[in-house]
Amino acid sequence: MAHTLVASATREWIIGDDKPFTVIGERLNPTNRKTFLEELSAGNYERVERDAISQTEAGAHMLDVNAGIPPHMGHEPTILVDMINLVQGLTDLPLAVDSSVKEALIAGVEAAKGRPLINSVTGEDESLDIVLPLAAKYDCPVVAICNDETGISPDPEVRFAVAKKIVERAADFGIKANDIVIDPLVMPLGATPADAILTYSQQAFEIVAKIRKELGANTTCGLSNVSFGLPNRHWMNGIFVAMAAGYGMTSAIMNPLHEEEMTSVRAADALLGHDQSCMKWMAKYRAPAPEGAEGAGRGRRGGGRRRSA
Amino acid sequence: MAHTLVASATREWIIGDDKPFTVIGERLNPTNRKTFLEELSAGNYERVERDAISQTEAGAHMLDVNAGIPPHMGHEPTILVDMINLVQGLTDLPLAVDSSVKEALIAGVEAAKGRPLINSVTGEDESLDIVLPLAAKYDCPVVAICNDETGISPDPEVRFAVAKKIVERAADFGIKANDIVIDPLVMPLGATPADAILTYSQQAFEIVAKIRKELGANTTCGLSNVSFGLPNRHWMNGIFVAMAAGYGMTSAIMNPLHEEEMTSVRAADALLGHDQSCMKWMAKYRAPAPEGAEGAGRGRRGGGRRRSA
Repeated sequence: MAHTLVASATREWIIGDDKPFTVIGERLNPTNRKTFLEELSAGNYERVERDAISQTEAGAHMLDVNAGIPPHMGHEPTILVDMINLVQGLTDLPLAVDSSVKEALIAGVEAAKGRPLINSVTGEDESLDIVLPLAAKYDCPVVAICNDETGISPDPEVRFAVAKKIVERAADFGIKANDIVIDPLVMPLGATPADAILTYSQQAFEIVAKIRKELGANTTCGLSNVSFGLPNRHWMNGIFVAMAAGYGMTSAIMNPLHEEEMTSVRAADALLGHDQSCMKWMAKYRAPAPEGAEGAGRGRRGGGRRRSA
Repeated sequence: MAHTLVASATREWIIGDDKPFTVIGERLNPTNRKTFLEELSAGNYERVERDAISQTEAGAHMLDVNAGIPPHMGHEPTILVDMINLVQGLTDLPLAVDSSVKEALIAGVEAAKGRPLINSVTGEDESLDIVLPLAAKYDCPVVAICNDETGISPDPEVRFAVAKKIVERAADFGIKANDIVIDPLVMPLGATPADAILTYSQQAFEIVAKIRKELGANTTCGLSNVSFGLPNRHWMNGIFVAMAAGYGMTSAIMNPLHEEEMTSVRAADALLGHDQSCMKWMAKYRAPAPEGAEGAGRGRRGGGRRRSA
């Protein structure tokens, strides 16, 4: 089984299919968020502080940090380093350094303490040639996205082949498969063509199962994408992530502030044996004793562990 | 793929892994329900009426009917037939005739119109000798429970072997594998021994996957059992049933009045391609337009299908 070690200066975390599902907080990312972009452009990092703290408190295991800003609004490498430095002072969670800009990715990886996850490399030669040497140089694990020069294939076999190619190219740089976290590219369920044999979600499930079995790598996805365009999105995301965990997905970049998704992750952990004797589930959801109730004889189990949810 | 046809006098339904997950309403069952037992004993069937109607309205696809009453309180065969006759007058859903008493099972199957599901046979010789001839005589599908004279094995391989034995014995009576709906026996997650390699839920997932692949039968479970003794039960049940559907489970005997479980089933259906273009999901959860809002230009999709949840 694949174990991917990530770390901050003071805390280690392992992504793996015999471990609790890894929740990678998605909130530190201004993409498509006008106000956040304007704040970063003006040097206002209050939202970064708030989102670092709130995601940590909500139970994220890692935080993704992205400073994707249009060049006319700011210098991405500088802002990314500022964000990373700020976040590292507020939380001890390991980070994912997230950029598609070479200079920003390098600056971010250098700024991040411990062993950050590099997010991301694609199957495009240009990306492979930039990111894999960086991952090798800093001995960092890397997120691999299953697209290449031809775009995102609608054929799961082709996306799996891209994943395999990245794993093989990484090996040339001395990067082991267990340091690769593959994103099969989960397209919106609602965008599945009416005549498709498999839904976009089923495609992802099958690629994940195949990656686990054949490549020995970990897996992730951008969870909120699943429910794009659908109502009752958080519930759909939650059911997707639990089912994906059943197929072997080991992490997701997601919003830890959404209770539906987090409850689903906790339930999947318990069902898959990653919450010994359901102790975390019971601690989270056991109702407090009613006012005036005695502790004994009420049929509660593990009563000493209960806590208000 | 296995297709199990069930029917009432006027409606057919197919249990199968290329079909929507089959929700078998569990409420028409007085087991461990003192008030309900007393009502049935007194000839009061109002609760039966209410539960038949409410489960139908909540979206059940079949209704399980059980009249398990202690002999000193009533005659199970008579009450079961009364319940079936009453329910058939109130709903056109196909029924599962549920008893462990031979006389009741025979009377119930004779009373049920269409093609009811017989619930259940076990791997015990006495059960096989009674129930399989009955299923063959009336050409009815049957629920097969994975225990035998030795009890419920903690070893999933042994439980699978019991399932296989039942399928083989059924074949001797001319009953095809696709007319058998196997219950792998889902024991409470929280009762999993601390040193177990697999949780009781994972055991069930693995048996279900193996049954689907090797026996060509459908599968079911008593869903509420999963979360026995745990807090936040309905959510745990919901995540279990969605994950189980991912492994190939095709039905569950469950409470359709619980929104968490039903939402999970609907999401799993959409994710697994059993809700074309997510039309049912959208119809169920699409918010109604705000008061006074215009219909156009608000980014809604499939606006004509929306309905208050």
